[in-house]
Amino acid sequence: MKAETISVGTELLLGEITDTNATHISQQLAAIGVDLYYRHNVGDNLQRLTGVLRTALSRSDVIVLSGGLGPTADDITRDGIAGITGRPLRRDAAAVEHLKRFFAERGRVPTESNFKQCEAPEGGKLLPNTCGTAPGLFVEHEGAWIFAIPGPPPEMREMLRLSVLPRLVERATAEGGGRLYSRVLRLADIGESNVANLLEDVIEGQTDPTIALYASPGEVKIRLAGKSPDEAAATQRLDAMEALLRERLGAHVYALDEDVMETAVGKLLRERNATLATAESCTGGLLASRVTDISGSSDYFLGGVVSYANEAKIGVLGVPAGVIEEHGAVSEPCARAMAEGVRRCMGADWGVATTGIAGPTGGTPEKPVGLVYMAVAGPGGTICQEQTWPGTRDQFKQRVTQMALNLLRKQIIADGE
Amino acid sequence: MKAETISVGTELLLGEITDTNATHISQQLAAIGVDLYYRHNVGDNLQRLTGVLRTALSRSDVIVLSGGLGPTADDITRDGIAGITGRPLRRDAAAVEHLKRFFAERGRVPTESNFKQCEAPEGGKLLPNTCGTAPGLFVEHEGAWIFAIPGPPPEMREMLRLSVLPRLVERATAEGGGRLYSRVLRLADIGESNVANLLEDVIEGQTDPTIALYASPGEVKIRLAGKSPDEAAATQRLDAMEALLRERLGAHVYALDEDVMETAVGKLLRERNATLATAESCTGGLLASRVTDISGSSDYFLGGVVSYANEAKIGVLGVPAGVIEEHGAVSEPCARAMAEGVRRCMGADWGVATTGIAGPTGGTPEKPVGLVYMAVAGPGGTICQEQTWPGTRDQFKQRVTQMALNLLRKQIIADGE
Repeated sequence: MKAETISVGTELLLGEITDTNATHISQQLAAIGVDLYYRHNVGDNLQRLTGVLRTALSRSDVIVLSGGLGPTADDITRDGIAGITGRPLRRDAAAVEHLKRFFAERGRVPTESNFKQCEAPEGGKLLPNTCGTAPGLFVEHEGAWIFAIPGPPPEMREMLRLSVLPRLVERATAEGGGRLYSRVLRLADIGESNVANLLEDVIEGQTDPTIALYASPGEVKIRLAGKSPDEAAATQRLDAMEALLRERLGAHVYALDEDVMETAVGKLLRERNATLATAESCTGGLLASRVTDISGSSDYFLGGVVSYANEAKIGVLGVPAGVIEEHGAVSEPCARAMAEGVRRCMGADWGVATTGIAGPTGGTPEKPVGLVYMAVAGPGGTICQEQTWPGTRDQFKQRVTQMALNLLRKQIIADGE
Repeated sequence: MKAETISVGTELLLGEITDTNATHISQQLAAIGVDLYYRHNVGDNLQRLTGVLRTALSRSDVIVLSGGLGPTADDITRDGIAGITGRPLRRDAAAVEHLKRFFAERGRVPTESNFKQCEAPEGGKLLPNTCGTAPGLFVEHEGAWIFAIPGPPPEMREMLRLSVLPRLVERATAEGGGRLYSRVLRLADIGESNVANLLEDVIEGQTDPTIALYASPGEVKIRLAGKSPDEAAATQRLDAMEALLRERLGAHVYALDEDVMETAVGKLLRERNATLATAESCTGGLLASRVTDISGSSDYFLGGVVSYANEAKIGVLGVPAGVIEEHGAVSEPCARAMAEGVRRCMGADWGVATTGIAGPTGGTPEKPVGLVYMAVAGPGGTICQEQTWPGTRDQFKQRVTQMALNLLRKQIIADGE
C-alpha cells in the first residue's frame, strides 16, 4: 500500500505552525507497515489543493489529508475532495443532530456555517470526531482511499487512531502482505553511539525482526519490526529479541512502545502501593504535570509544590532559611531539603525535587544557566544529582523532568532490592 | 514570485524527525514577501524527487530544496537537479581545495565520496557552507531559480540567510512587489464562526491588508497582511485595521503575534507590580508550568500547589474539610477555597485555582468527565466559573489552563477599572 499525505492550511506555508501532524501520521503509518512516499502542504486554496490531490490519486492507494475541515469559507478540504472525485456534498442528518446536541450541551447555538461540517461527498462516510465538532471524511474512489481528518492535533490523533488506522490494518492484512508487528524499547541515560557499540553484533546480524535505532531529545529508541501472517510466531520472535536486548542494556530500558517515563514511574509506584509528591523550582510545575498526564495517577500522586519564591520554599516546604542563605536556592542542600520537605508535608513515600537555572537570564559564572540539582527522598534516604544542560527554557524543563523521573525510577527499583 | 520547497529525506517520511526546516524557510520567505504555495517531502529516492521537481519547475519561480547533499549514495539532491535540468555535474576546483583544507585542519583525510560534495550542475554555483562540509547549490534554469541547501538546521539557516534570501530580496525589489507586513491578533473566549459572523462585512470588503481567520485549540487567530514598498504606509494600514477589529471584538483580543496567554497575563501582572500563586487539582501543575514558561516569570509568580489528594487541599491550602465533605472536591466552594487558600499561603495578590475531572475515568452522572471549576481570588474578592469540556486528558488540561489564565486576565483588567 502506497500512501501520501496532504496537510492543508495557509498557516503552515507562512511558518506560523510546524507540521507536527505530518510527523505523527508518518510514524503511525510506518508502525503498521504502510509505505509513505510523499507528503505535501498546500494553503487554503481550492485550485492548488485540487492539483495536488489529482497527482496523488494518480499514483497512491491511500491519501490522508489533515486540516481544512472547519466551518469557514477558507476551509476547502471537503470541496476539494468533492470536486476531484465528482461526488457532490450531501448533508448527513445524524451528523446535524449530533452537532446540535454538542452545541446545546455547551449552552451555544450552531450557526449555518457550522452545518457545513456535516456534509460528505456522495458515497463517502463521515468519521466521528470524539474531541471536537468537525467530523472527518472517508471516500473510496477508483480503488484509492481518501481520508480527511481535522487539523487540531488532539482531534487528528484520535480520529487517526479510531477511524483511519484500523481500516488500513484490515486492508493490509486482506492484501496478504502480512501484518507488520513491531515493538519499541525506550532507553534512558545512554547515548545512541553507546547503544550502537553495545549492540554492534546484534545489529549486523539482524534479519527478522529488523532493528533500528532512533535518537530523540532525552532518549534513544530501538524499534524491532517484522512482517508476518502469523501473530504468534511474530510475537515470539519479538519476545526473543527483546530479551536479548534487555540482557545487554539492563536498566537503561525503561519502557516499551507508547509508554513514557511518567508511565514507567507510575507503574512502579502502583505495583508497590507507594505514593509520590513533587517539589519544583526551575521546572515550574512541569514535573507534576507530566506525572498527572497519566490517567489514574491520583492513585499514587498526592500533590506537589511549585516553590518559585524562596518564601514558598521556606514557608510551605520547610526548607531551613539558613540553607538558602548559606548555599543559595540552586544547591544540593536546598534540593535535598525540598525533596524531604514535600515528602513530609504531603505524607508521601517518595519526594522528588528540582532546583536550577532555566535561563535564558539568571546565570552567574559560579552557577551558569542550565545548572540543576535533582533530589529524590525515599524510605531509604535522600540522593541528589547535579547536571548542567544549556539549551532553551523549554528544552531545559523537558530534560530536567525526564532525568528527575528517571532518577526516581532507579531509586524505586533499587529500594526493592 | 511564487515559491515551492522540497525537503528530502526518508527520515522525514518515517516520522523520525519533524520538518522544522520547512517551518523556518516558510517564515523567512513570508518575511520578505515571497509567496510560498507548496511544500513537499520526498524520501531518498531519485525517481520520486525528480517527479516532484518536474512539477515544481512547471509552475514556480523559486524552488528551495533542503537535505540530501551529504557524501553518501543515498544523498540524491545533486543528481536530481542535474537530471531534471539536463546539466551534468562538474567538479569545482576551488571547492576541492577548500574541502582538502577543511579536513587537513582537523587532521583528517577526505574520502572519494566527500568530493562528490564539490560538484555542481553545469552553469550552476556552489553556495558556501559556513558551518559544515556540504556546499549548497544555485542553478538558474529557464527562468526558475533552484536552490539546494543542507538538511542539518544550523547549516540550513546560515546558508538561507547568507546565500538564498539576499538573492530573493534583490529579485523581489527589482520586480517591484514590495515587502510583506503582517500582524496576528489572538482571541480568547470566542469561536471561529462567531468571529466570522462579527466580522462578515470586514472580511468581505478586505483589500489591503488581507484578513484570514485560523482556529487553534483554545483560541482563534486573525492574520492581517499586506505587501508594500513603504513600511510607514503598511504599518498605518495594519494599525487602522487592528483598531477596527479591536472595536468589534473588545477584550476577546488578548495578545498580538507570538505572545501567548501566559505572556499576556505576565505583562498585566508586571505592569501592576502584582504577584500570582496557583492551586491546581485537575490541571496537575500545567497551569504553573505555563506561567513559568515565560522567562522572568519569577518576578511575579511566587509559587503553586498541586493539591491532587484531598489531604493536600486541606493540609497545605487550608480548604475546610467540611467544604469537601459537603460539596466534594470538584465544586465551586472548593475551587473558591483553593484560590483563596493559595493566595493566602503564598502571600500573593492573585490566586487562581482549578478543580475538575480530567478523565477518562472518574466521572459520575452528576459530575461528568470534563466538568471543571476555575476560581480567581484577588484584591476585590473571588469569582468562579463552571465549564464542561469533554475531550482527551491533554486537551482538557490545555483548555482549562487557557481558560483559567483568561479568567485571571479579565479579572486583573476589571480590577483596575
